[in-house]
Amino acid sequence: MTSEYDAALDLTPAEVPGRWAGRFSDGWSIGQAVNGGLVMAVAVEALHRQLAEQGDAAHPDLVAVSAFFLTASQPGPVVVDTEVLRPGRTLTTGQVSLQQPGEDGTPVPRMRSLVSVGALTGTPARRQPPPVDLPAPEDCVGSGDAPPGGLASSTLLQRLDLRLDPSCVGWAVGRPSGRGVMRGWFRFADGREPDPTSLLLALDGLPPVAFELGIPGWAPTLELTAHVWARPAPGWLRVEVTSEVLSDATMEEDARVWDSSGRLVAHSRQLCGVRVPEGWAPAG
Amino acid sequence: MTSEYDAALDLTPAEVPGRWAGRFSDGWSIGQAVNGGLVMAVAVEALHRQLAEQGDAAHPDLVAVSAFFLTASQPGPVVVDTEVLRPGRTLTTGQVSLQQPGEDGTPVPRMRSLVSVGALTGTPARRQPPPVDLPAPEDCVGSGDAPPGGLASSTLLQRLDLRLDPSCVGWAVGRPSGRGVMRGWFRFADGREPDPTSLLLALDGLPPVAFELGIPGWAPTLELTAHVWARPAPGWLRVEVTSEVLSDATMEEDARVWDSSGRLVAHSRQLCGVRVPEGWAPAG
Repeated sequence: MTSEYDAALDLTPAEVPGRWAGRFSDGWSIGQAVNGGLVMAVAVEALHRQLAEQGDAAHPDLVAVSAFFLTASQPGPVVVDTEVLRPGRTLTTGQVSLQQPGEDGTPVPRMRSLVSVGALTGTPARRQPPPVDLPAPEDCVGSGDAPPGGLASSTLLQRLDLRLDPSCVGWAVGRPSGRGVMRGWFRFADGREPDPTSLLLALDGLPPVAFELGIPGWAPTLELTAHVWARPAPGWLRVEVTSEVLSDATMEEDARVWDSSGRLVAHSRQLCGVRVPEGWAPAG
Repeated sequence: MTSEYDAALDLTPAEVPGRWAGRFSDGWSIGQAVNGGLVMAVAVEALHRQLAEQGDAAHPDLVAVSAFFLTASQPGPVVVDTEVLRPGRTLTTGQVSLQQPGEDGTPVPRMRSLVSVGALTGTPARRQPPPVDLPAPEDCVGSGDAPPGGLASSTLLQRLDLRLDPSCVGWAVGRPSGRGVMRGWFRFADGREPDPTSLLLALDGLPPVAFELGIPGWAPTLELTAHVWARPAPGWLRVEVTSEVLSDATMEEDARVWDSSGRLVAHSRQLCGVRVPEGWAPAG
């Protein structure tokens, strides 16, 4: 059985060299767009397929990706263009661009990214932040338990088994903590185990930290850079997202993901857009 | 009088559309390469010039840049190709690629980057980390005072007035702290005041954090992403660089820069290569 995630990464070679054709189903949307984590995963998958086609089997794992989101991706066909910039011994770096046909058929650029792939090991990092402390998954708040708060229409949440730390869900009942922290457990709802590329969904899959700062509404990712440190062990992932900078119209979010063995497997930083309510003041 | 930094950013339009020609002098080298901060600044400058040529005056400030370093830049001519990906109202995003002629004249790709520019204000951020505490500049260690440690041959240090916190220079006398922190004051030696683009040199201008972890040697940047939060006030910049992940051959460095008014003006994260000595163990 193909997992929902693997089905979403299905790509076929197009006639233009380096080009791949895919489709965003309507199962990965959040707000008015396809989730950025999935968009990035499709980009990385295209580079992997391109390298495989070129006979490069030495760089099976995502190591680093920086994605600039140009317009919001929509369910429907997607065209993915890859360019290998530098084939290397330890790292190979490429560029991946995504576009979708607009209403009149003109291609609309969605996202452009730079991606480095290599070979990760199971070796623990020599230095890493300790895994975030979380209540057991059964003591956390599942997507099904969470009051709407604008997420009810998200099809993405049906693909994920997300268990939020009860101390980070005050926003859902109108009492955001003001701390700028979002934490929880993450795995795919259908049991698909994590791999380096799918960690992008964990890094970008929790509700925006802005919610816990009392800033509701859509917080679209403008730019996200992720580093992957190890191949994740099977099982639950722990995710913590924090923020230390909020400006007038943008903020940053730092995400960390640990696997079930306690290793930091990935982290990311993103710049996202926010609409700060009139009269907003930092809590605490 | 043109400052040394502005002279380094001098670019002339080339015959190919979107292309700019420049030159790396031998005044900005560190280890065996031109400093990554300067390489990124040249890329951003090229995009600004391209946009100016196209009549876009609404996006004068660097907001975000992600750069992937493909090979080490060398003193000599450099060719900078720009591509505007999405002209926007608040942000315009482009791609900038740098190449240099190899020994046989073949272009060698040096760096590829994605860059978003916009209009920053002097408004303080609504949330930000407080400025790092530092001894007064005159109580810090100047580049001239620092024992060699492999930096003596760096021409970059002659362009900068760098004053390191004495608590972060144990590496220079064989006693690294093991904390993974590097801190100091930064300004250009010739008094050139900072602007959003030049903050890239502050973000990437301190000695590698690896030194304070007991890992000597060259720590080449593989990827660096920076966000700029405000136009810096004139005067000294405070810089703090920390690291929380060290793997077998790579580590990450997080840099923060505050201006003389105490505002966080930029931060960055980079993935860099390291050669961990045999038998290395974390201190503390």
